[in-house]
Amino acid sequence: MKPDNLRIVILAGGSGTRFWPLSRTNFPKQFLDVEGRGESLLRGTLTRNFPLVDASRVFVIAGEKYRDALAKELPELPPANFIFEPMGRDTAPAVALLTLYVALKEGPESIVAILPADHVISPREKWQSALADAARLAEESSAIVTFGIAPTFPSTQFGYIESKPGEAKTSSGLSAFDVSAFREKPDKATAEKYVAGKRHFWNAGIFIFRAKTMLDELRNNAADIIEPLEAAAEAYAKTGGLEMLREVFPTIRKTSIDYAVMEKARNIKVIASDFAWDDVGAFDALRGLRERDEAGNVVEGPALLHKATDSIVLAKSGRKVILAGLDGVLCVDTGDALLVAPADKPELIKEIALRLKSEGCEEVL
Amino acid sequence: MKPDNLRIVILAGGSGTRFWPLSRTNFPKQFLDVEGRGESLLRGTLTRNFPLVDASRVFVIAGEKYRDALAKELPELPPANFIFEPMGRDTAPAVALLTLYVALKEGPESIVAILPADHVISPREKWQSALADAARLAEESSAIVTFGIAPTFPSTQFGYIESKPGEAKTSSGLSAFDVSAFREKPDKATAEKYVAGKRHFWNAGIFIFRAKTMLDELRNNAADIIEPLEAAAEAYAKTGGLEMLREVFPTIRKTSIDYAVMEKARNIKVIASDFAWDDVGAFDALRGLRERDEAGNVVEGPALLHKATDSIVLAKSGRKVILAGLDGVLCVDTGDALLVAPADKPELIKEIALRLKSEGCEEVL
Repeated sequence: MKPDNLRIVILAGGSGTRFWPLSRTNFPKQFLDVEGRGESLLRGTLTRNFPLVDASRVFVIAGEKYRDALAKELPELPPANFIFEPMGRDTAPAVALLTLYVALKEGPESIVAILPADHVISPREKWQSALADAARLAEESSAIVTFGIAPTFPSTQFGYIESKPGEAKTSSGLSAFDVSAFREKPDKATAEKYVAGKRHFWNAGIFIFRAKTMLDELRNNAADIIEPLEAAAEAYAKTGGLEMLREVFPTIRKTSIDYAVMEKARNIKVIASDFAWDDVGAFDALRGLRERDEAGNVVEGPALLHKATDSIVLAKSGRKVILAGLDGVLCVDTGDALLVAPADKPELIKEIALRLKSEGCEEVL
Repeated sequence: MKPDNLRIVILAGGSGTRFWPLSRTNFPKQFLDVEGRGESLLRGTLTRNFPLVDASRVFVIAGEKYRDALAKELPELPPANFIFEPMGRDTAPAVALLTLYVALKEGPESIVAILPADHVISPREKWQSALADAARLAEESSAIVTFGIAPTFPSTQFGYIESKPGEAKTSSGLSAFDVSAFREKPDKATAEKYVAGKRHFWNAGIFIFRAKTMLDELRNNAADIIEPLEAAAEAYAKTGGLEMLREVFPTIRKTSIDYAVMEKARNIKVIASDFAWDDVGAFDALRGLRERDEAGNVVEGPALLHKATDSIVLAKSGRKVILAGLDGVLCVDTGDALLVAPADKPELIKEIALRLKSEGCEEVL
């Protein structure tokens, strides 16, 4: 079941401090082996598609500073399948650029799947089956197809996809709906209504479409974004040179594909996903992704937990880490920095990053 | 005010795990710079006496395995002023051996002050004045003189010295009493009675006596301890050889000087000390010995505390340590081991040491 015209585009440009000190300015979350299975999130985003595509059909966009790290993580990709942004401009310019590039290299009828590089999805068989369904649906319907995640709680941290009544079935039997609206992160009361109404899904930022479909939507809804990128994409496709992109990219509006296109496009479908999905927003996500000991602790590396419960200990420096007599503590030990904080307060980690910056400790950021 | 016949004997044999991972099997508490003033407890035990004695008048006993560490910490002491125990046998054999040795080398009329190596005493001027008083009193009265610490709470972790009614004054005006009894660590109710009655002092393990006086008491009350040591002390004084000591020492009863002598001796006086004293029993003692920031934290090394209170962070490895959003946490970061635990539960640290041993992690103990 290898869809002939499927191409994968991985958005690997994300940064973020929520996994500090594991993640760093030059080593963001997508490079971390979050699941502890010997594979970074980025590499997992590649390999989970392998039965559906060859490496030659996978494209990646990320910041230029990650060039070496990307080549190391994804050695099977041809060099021409990487595009480097001179700076992050959110997802709309990245999707526009890559869709242009894939259309030029692989043809405008190619089915493109846009995948964030820093999510966990399992099991892989379900993902592959769902993606094949989505590719087929995108081809047959000329819609932009998304995966919707059934919300398990009224999160105010995710955008929501509102579906229309009227269920269809995909080839493998998943439920598919027409989309009536994309909703930005709601307040608590609204989120509760969404969950109660059972018509809303979490937006996982995964989009599958015919290249031509997305290019049309971009031209209709975000011409200021796509037009300056056309020549740059062509130049890169012809010469592999990034000069034009470096010139153009900083002038482009910084915005998300959700805002630039998805909230305006008319033909969108959502497939209710049956795979498990986690955007791994903070360290406490490890509690759902890793094995826990009988006291509820997540432990990696040479650690000894003594009368400690519901804690997360990542001993990455090789040193012996002892956590004793504490509950719900996060302890991350790396070669040059150590973090000890409550496991359920990710906001503190952002604050710490700001303080380290303001106190001139950039060398550990 | 240099008392001509005063000799200092430092008992540096203590081990213990309560300061793990700062202290180790081969680097016990007395070698730590607990006060953060650039001087170990052991070295402080030497230098606080310097206006009263020269280094040539200071003797030290400790385990043979500390030989190199001792020479490094106390370089001004003549080699013949160290005696090495082949094993720890508690304080009675150590005091007996050293008193014999000092009597042989310096004469039986020498006034010997026995000082534990792992206590904090300040200010030094008060200590020096009190010690000069005690030396004078020991000489004039032929008593064993002790310092009593006025109890600040009903501790069950210290032995107590019971004084007789009837106060005398030392040369510098401190209160001195005859001692009616030495009391072992009491239960809570008894400790409360001691504190309420105002006749009991904490026993700091500091004893000042004429060498001959202690030797007589040992011969009367603990002949089995002192007799086998006489020839060994003589051999060491003559040849510097430890062979005989190595043979004899393991056969000697392991017991404290309190139990072997102090509970039985007839002529004991206690001086109510006016210096501050701390036996630094556990990490939380640092809260009383170190400067604290406005949130009550004790911090050493390259650490950042963010919304953390009443905690103790010792960043000894050079790495950046971040403690955030926690209260009352102890975080000790060394080159090969890291401890995170509540600051006020020293019993956990003993338990950890036992677990590390049972799990074959002796390399970090």
